[in-house]
Amino acid sequence: MSELKGACIIGQSGGPTAVINASALGVIRTALDTDCITQVLGAANGIKGVLDDKLYDMGKEDPAELDLLKYTPSSALGSCRYKLSDPDVDDTDYKRILEIFQKHNVRYFFYNGGNDSMDTCNKISKYMQKMGYECRVMGVPKTIDNDLNGTDHCPGFASAAKFIATSCMEVHRDAHVYDTGMITIIEIMGRHAGWLAGSAALATWAGFGPDLVYLPETDFDMDKFLADVKAIYDKTGKCMVAVSEGIHYADGTFVSEAKASATDGFGHAQLGGLAAMLADIVKKETGAKVRGIELSLLQRCGSHVASKTDIDEAFMAGKTAVEAAVSGVTDKMVAFQCTREGGYKCEYVLEPLDIVANIEKKVPREWINAAGNGVEQPFIDYVLPLIQGEANAPKEHALPRFAKLKKVLAE
Amino acid sequence: MSELKGACIIGQSGGPTAVINASALGVIRTALDTDCITQVLGAANGIKGVLDDKLYDMGKEDPAELDLLKYTPSSALGSCRYKLSDPDVDDTDYKRILEIFQKHNVRYFFYNGGNDSMDTCNKISKYMQKMGYECRVMGVPKTIDNDLNGTDHCPGFASAAKFIATSCMEVHRDAHVYDTGMITIIEIMGRHAGWLAGSAALATWAGFGPDLVYLPETDFDMDKFLADVKAIYDKTGKCMVAVSEGIHYADGTFVSEAKASATDGFGHAQLGGLAAMLADIVKKETGAKVRGIELSLLQRCGSHVASKTDIDEAFMAGKTAVEAAVSGVTDKMVAFQCTREGGYKCEYVLEPLDIVANIEKKVPREWINAAGNGVEQPFIDYVLPLIQGEANAPKEHALPRFAKLKKVLAE
Repeated sequence: MSELKGACIIGQSGGPTAVINASALGVIRTALDTDCITQVLGAANGIKGVLDDKLYDMGKEDPAELDLLKYTPSSALGSCRYKLSDPDVDDTDYKRILEIFQKHNVRYFFYNGGNDSMDTCNKISKYMQKMGYECRVMGVPKTIDNDLNGTDHCPGFASAAKFIATSCMEVHRDAHVYDTGMITIIEIMGRHAGWLAGSAALATWAGFGPDLVYLPETDFDMDKFLADVKAIYDKTGKCMVAVSEGIHYADGTFVSEAKASATDGFGHAQLGGLAAMLADIVKKETGAKVRGIELSLLQRCGSHVASKTDIDEAFMAGKTAVEAAVSGVTDKMVAFQCTREGGYKCEYVLEPLDIVANIEKKVPREWINAAGNGVEQPFIDYVLPLIQGEANAPKEHALPRFAKLKKVLAE
Repeated sequence: MSELKGACIIGQSGGPTAVINASALGVIRTALDTDCITQVLGAANGIKGVLDDKLYDMGKEDPAELDLLKYTPSSALGSCRYKLSDPDVDDTDYKRILEIFQKHNVRYFFYNGGNDSMDTCNKISKYMQKMGYECRVMGVPKTIDNDLNGTDHCPGFASAAKFIATSCMEVHRDAHVYDTGMITIIEIMGRHAGWLAGSAALATWAGFGPDLVYLPETDFDMDKFLADVKAIYDKTGKCMVAVSEGIHYADGTFVSEAKASATDGFGHAQLGGLAAMLADIVKKETGAKVRGIELSLLQRCGSHVASKTDIDEAFMAGKTAVEAAVSGVTDKMVAFQCTREGGYKCEYVLEPLDIVANIEKKVPREWINAAGNGVEQPFIDYVLPLIQGEANAPKEHALPRFAKLKKVLAE
């Protein structure tokens, strides 16, 4: 494969994670050190920055400041949730992207994101091929939801899982100090896949965690849920529950969206979230003191408790993408192939973009218990190696020292 | 002062903190190493454990497990919110306490808590003196609210402040990734004093934090609040707000409890908390995407991000209480006397229990800005030294390794 000389673009897309910037750093640092890459451009707000020709010259950044990206949560270049149209229907955006690529002689495009971003990657790659413009397009995976197909797991998931497990352990201790009754309901992200909610069970495995865990992979039954909670509460005076935001009834309706029914009178989802709503229902049913806690954004940006394994893998995903592209690969996403027996090992492999795009990987049913209110040991064995290692992120005055980028626009 | 030989009781009371167990350890470890203290008893659920004669023999615990108390959040012995009656009105509880003290030959009583606990301490001490039963009673301060009188600050506050500042920095990054409008409202504990809410401003000081901070020390005005938010949002497309749960209108009504008024139609506080309610109001006013986040229990039990300074001081407060009592002191609370100029220094002093009981220390008005929507530099200078140092708490499989006590009942 002949050497392809030109600029590269790195873009970040979708919801942020604690380690998405570690992947960006993997791309940027490797690209800056690669001779055939003439300029490293950071797209402001993902593909929108390309369309707007708002591209930062990453070579103008202070290297020490760039290195801090490894420990800086959320998307430092800015993100977007922009979905490209089908190019056969409307190719306006694609023409514009080609124009910008030509203007800056962009020959490498790295896109860091989840399902939709891999779809974006795929469409751009196919369009460039069709137009005969040589450009190597690589996807770098990212999502706390861990629902990307074709990879053992996704960067960002493990750090969120670690935050969730750690917080559940701490809240468990807090919720058990009084000798009076107390029920705690913790709401965890993950609309369609229960990887994050299931991770709350790590806390239980470690000695202090939820009694019940509900994932969106099984149908939710309010009566059964209330019976589960009451059984534990009646026996111990306490009950701690972790629920995925995506739990839904058998007909597919999200519990969080359920309207008040004639029989139960619950379902005031307009204010607060699912945790508050379930807390209200459980309170009415049991008379107990109930507290609903939504982990909210904290769980996806908790870089202070990030997994070193996650950070290192996120960085390597970016680095691998650049190295593969330079060596001639295109149209692939970096994926992880892992073994856990005899010690955890992660290999970086390449998967076709169109295999990973638009498919959601869910928790296998056999990793969830029969009652649908907890996870089995294989789930724990799967997640545990991923959360290992401490970030030891740089601090200043005992507070996180996040990267402060200059963001100089490319000429 | 002659040597007083006998058992001691340590009790924990009120809401838990990340470091209350470090104080318990300071008491227990020092007491176990003190010859004239014949037995170290841990009261189950504070004064309730004394009344119920439910006392754990702390000498039966594995020393290594006890040492983990330094890094274990919430009250390991259990807590209570039991208020003793006025002994002149009803002395039933006091008679029972004396009976238990006599039964176990308790000559030292250490009570670890906030305002109410110091009041409990004070009443017990006075009763024992009146009855001629020699017992040295010492208060060990604790409260994330930092509202205890007579001390520079309270153990537990700094670790909560550090959690709040760190989380605000991370959420700030998360809330700024899209180029679309976004308003974030973070609800922070502290019903009557704004020490914790004000600590959110540390995040702003460090580069990434709330634009507006509202403390309960000033009256809240909804119109002014909305104008503040809109001014920043209109200019930058973003706005991040930290509010104390205790913000209240000029007439004293908590904002969280305000009912819907005829003019504005807001105030659905029945579900979710203040953050959700304010988010709803701001959304209606601005049309922006608004997210309300309640830090909830996470902020008071976040031992994984605890301040080493706080842990060490909490331990020393317990240790000092025992040493002072053994040397003959009674009726005092351990307090901190600190200097910040020329480097932070903390001295452990003793204050009379009746000076500290039942008074709430608030943030000085001059440390809050004139507009009542932020704090001034003296506030930052006050808090910053307290959050320094990392806990480096022991972990097992990358998750917190909390103390697991045997809790053997004393014979």
